[in-house]
Amino acid sequence: MNNVTKLKIKKPPHEVFEAFVDPAKIGNFWFSSSSARWEPGKTIKLRYEEYGAEGEIAVTEIVENEKIVFEWKYGEDIHKVTIKLFKPEAGNTVVEIIEDGFIESGEGWVDLLIGNKEGWVYMLTCLKGYLENGITTLRAAVVHN
Amino acid sequence: MNNVTKLKIKKPPHEVFEAFVDPAKIGNFWFSSSSARWEPGKTIKLRYEEYGAEGEIAVTEIVENEKIVFEWKYGEDIHKVTIKLFKPEAGNTVVEIIEDGFIESGEGWVDLLIGNKEGWVYMLTCLKGYLENGITTLRAAVVHN
Repeated sequence: MNNVTKLKIKKPPHEVFEAFVDPAKIGNFWFSSSSARWEPGKTIKLRYEEYGAEGEIAVTEIVENEKIVFEWKYGEDIHKVTIKLFKPEAGNTVVEIIEDGFIESGEGWVDLLIGNKEGWVYMLTCLKGYLENGITTLRAAVVHN
Repeated sequence: MNNVTKLKIKKPPHEVFEAFVDPAKIGNFWFSSSSARWEPGKTIKLRYEEYGAEGEIAVTEIVENEKIVFEWKYGEDIHKVTIKLFKPEAGNTVVEIIEDGFIESGEGWVDLLIGNKEGWVYMLTCLKGYLENGITTLRAAVVHN
């Protein structure tokens, strides 16, 4: 099973691509920091200061302005995340995020999926606000408990 | 089973409350139109112009600046939605949305839940952008297919 989320952003693919891979930009809409520029073969440390959380992603594939693929540990399993950038018309990008690797059984698997969906929709909406309007204060406001 | 989503908005509860109940405001962050001010006992028509969708909610309870409860049809079932506004500190509101009525069986129940989570997280993030930054262009950008 996979989890698919798609959002339209009124900016060209290059700007969306750079927002993910450039460590100077990620703190404006998602994690608070990223340890290096995302490139194939690299392991990147991502910190989420506000939630006291840290994790790693292993970048496996990059097609500039089109695709980013990485693996991370989600729950107890390794998941594959594919970020695809489509250009439906000039100046616009549809960002599609596919997370693969959910196992449909065991205690709490639905909660894990729901939490995952929450994360992707939230991040993409924050990204839209950042790229389209220059707003960097939408992130880190989800309350977990 | 219920679906719970919580987001912090840096505006007082009254502004958050009015954004939902005042039909002049909803088009800035959620549906394109709401047929009347939300009040207990009223049935409100909500339109989502961009997706060619229309639905009704039956408002069952309102506590000004604190709580809004309504029922709507979601999938094949009637669900109860409770919007609660908490004031963790002056000038801030935590909006909690609880949707009750999911039946954990049958074809596609997980997809229904995931879609529901997507909707609430997205709407709340758009609401945050609207109230905190006056941005009304984040909504209606989720791509379904």
